[in-house]
Amino acid sequence: MKPIDVIIIGGGPAGISAAIWCKRLGINHLLLEKQEQLGGQLFEIKNEIIDYPGVIAKDGKELQEFFVRHFKDIGCSYKQNAEVLAVNSTLKTIEVKCGNNIEQYPFQYIILATGAGPAYLDVPGEKAMITRGEMYSATTDAYLFRNKNVVIVGGGDRAFEGAILLAKAEANVYLIHRSTQFKAREEYIDEAKKIHNIKIITNAQVTRIHGEQKVTAVDYVNHKGKMCTLPSDAVFIRIGIKPNNTLIKQIVKTNEKGLIVTDSFGKTGTSFIYAIGDICTNPLFSSISSSVGQGMIVAKNLSLFLKGQYEGLREL
Amino acid sequence: MKPIDVIIIGGGPAGISAAIWCKRLGINHLLLEKQEQLGGQLFEIKNEIIDYPGVIAKDGKELQEFFVRHFKDIGCSYKQNAEVLAVNSTLKTIEVKCGNNIEQYPFQYIILATGAGPAYLDVPGEKAMITRGEMYSATTDAYLFRNKNVVIVGGGDRAFEGAILLAKAEANVYLIHRSTQFKAREEYIDEAKKIHNIKIITNAQVTRIHGEQKVTAVDYVNHKGKMCTLPSDAVFIRIGIKPNNTLIKQIVKTNEKGLIVTDSFGKTGTSFIYAIGDICTNPLFSSISSSVGQGMIVAKNLSLFLKGQYEGLREL
Repeated sequence: MKPIDVIIIGGGPAGISAAIWCKRLGINHLLLEKQEQLGGQLFEIKNEIIDYPGVIAKDGKELQEFFVRHFKDIGCSYKQNAEVLAVNSTLKTIEVKCGNNIEQYPFQYIILATGAGPAYLDVPGEKAMITRGEMYSATTDAYLFRNKNVVIVGGGDRAFEGAILLAKAEANVYLIHRSTQFKAREEYIDEAKKIHNIKIITNAQVTRIHGEQKVTAVDYVNHKGKMCTLPSDAVFIRIGIKPNNTLIKQIVKTNEKGLIVTDSFGKTGTSFIYAIGDICTNPLFSSISSSVGQGMIVAKNLSLFLKGQYEGLREL
Repeated sequence: MKPIDVIIIGGGPAGISAAIWCKRLGINHLLLEKQEQLGGQLFEIKNEIIDYPGVIAKDGKELQEFFVRHFKDIGCSYKQNAEVLAVNSTLKTIEVKCGNNIEQYPFQYIILATGAGPAYLDVPGEKAMITRGEMYSATTDAYLFRNKNVVIVGGGDRAFEGAILLAKAEANVYLIHRSTQFKAREEYIDEAKKIHNIKIITNAQVTRIHGEQKVTAVDYVNHKGKMCTLPSDAVFIRIGIKPNNTLIKQIVKTNEKGLIVTDSFGKTGTSFIYAIGDICTNPLFSSISSSVGQGMIVAKNLSLFLKGQYEGLREL
């Protein structure tokens, strides 16, 4: 089997952009997506997207539709339900689970675009809560918590946005954050501070989630080091995201946050492995805009290599 | 007058993205555009745009409309017909010509997004040709050259695209390129090579454009070092773009190509001056996608500085 020039692993915005640019540049490519649908974290965005220039989308699902339509209209190559199980760096092949089959694909280059998923607290009771399915969306499930106590953990946009939505649905909201500084937008912080049924608890560390059949309370250590227990009917963990690096951290270098380390062209320490999007981007700079830009840069860079036009290119 | 937190100079895709992200992040900003309309080089793109994920636009004008509508809908701040005449790094003010007035704006940060324009050959006869208005579009003017000789200079996409369009309009096309390697897409090169009325002359250097009232011929040195003269009714110079750095090259470092040198956050050697888009990007990587990504990164970076949240951030 002739190697595929570029295999893209992951079909979120970064991977889709890389595939669109591969197609545009005439590169023989294949995008592999583990899930049933392309789009990655776009499905998690429940609010209006106003920060991808040229398109105002009512939510991530709508932008996903625009991206996927574009991707398909120009004829990008892809497989869904295709989970990469292993990368063999010596043979330059990958092992892919497609339905019940295991397939091997030889490649020249791979682009890792596996993205990131929610980070968790890693405290007792958390896993049981997740397994019980007590994972709520503040946007669609807020009505369930009218006159009930809910805990939101985190200090970024999603934590504050969730707190505001839940408070508007008349829940009693406790936002617990480990620091006194917030990463959320000023407008969210200002709004939340004005809402009487949001209590913000800073400098506090959640240590346990209680409950057998369902969540009943949360333990946290307060700013004075004192252990406190807060009765609660739900816990919304909004402490950011962590890179999906399980597949790859044995073969490429990751930093202390688990992000793949790349140069400004997206190249990892291994010459034929590139990375783009949230798998290699500080979450502060994670965005659809930057992922799309990275997808372009990597595809163009690989096209120069593949066409033998890489004449001492040093910088962007 | 209170300083504006971020002044963005230039309203192409990079500047528009930076402004959208400034607005999104709550940064007090002002975008200044020298021309009557925002959009920059988007107006130069006459073909379909298939490489900006999420939007397939029939030409640059259509994408410009999407970008500008988005920019205005979310309430970005801007002035058109506003030419920046000087940047005073000591006082941190810029001098702007708005119509007949000269205005001064104090700022905290500036983002240079002045883009790039066509590069020229810098040979005798070229300036006179430009002054006479003999600057044609292969897309809209090809019909003028039926059964006539035309010279296209360059080896990239735009050169080949122009050659194909002119050949289809039955012009006799000579494509002159200084190298034997082309930067154009394979598909364009393959197509051009198959068309009988396109002659490709490689390893050749154009040295003069002849003509008093209008272009009559072109001189070039061929691959053997011999001077040749080619009768021609028009010359299409498609040798790439050069950065619009006149305003700024006294105060920030530029490389041998005239591009502003920045770090991966877009910061120049001067701590309060940033650059994005074609003013600082190797033309090989110039794209709407990468410009949009850069605009996001810089705006986010400045928001962290302005909010005092820049805690030892080292890498993207």
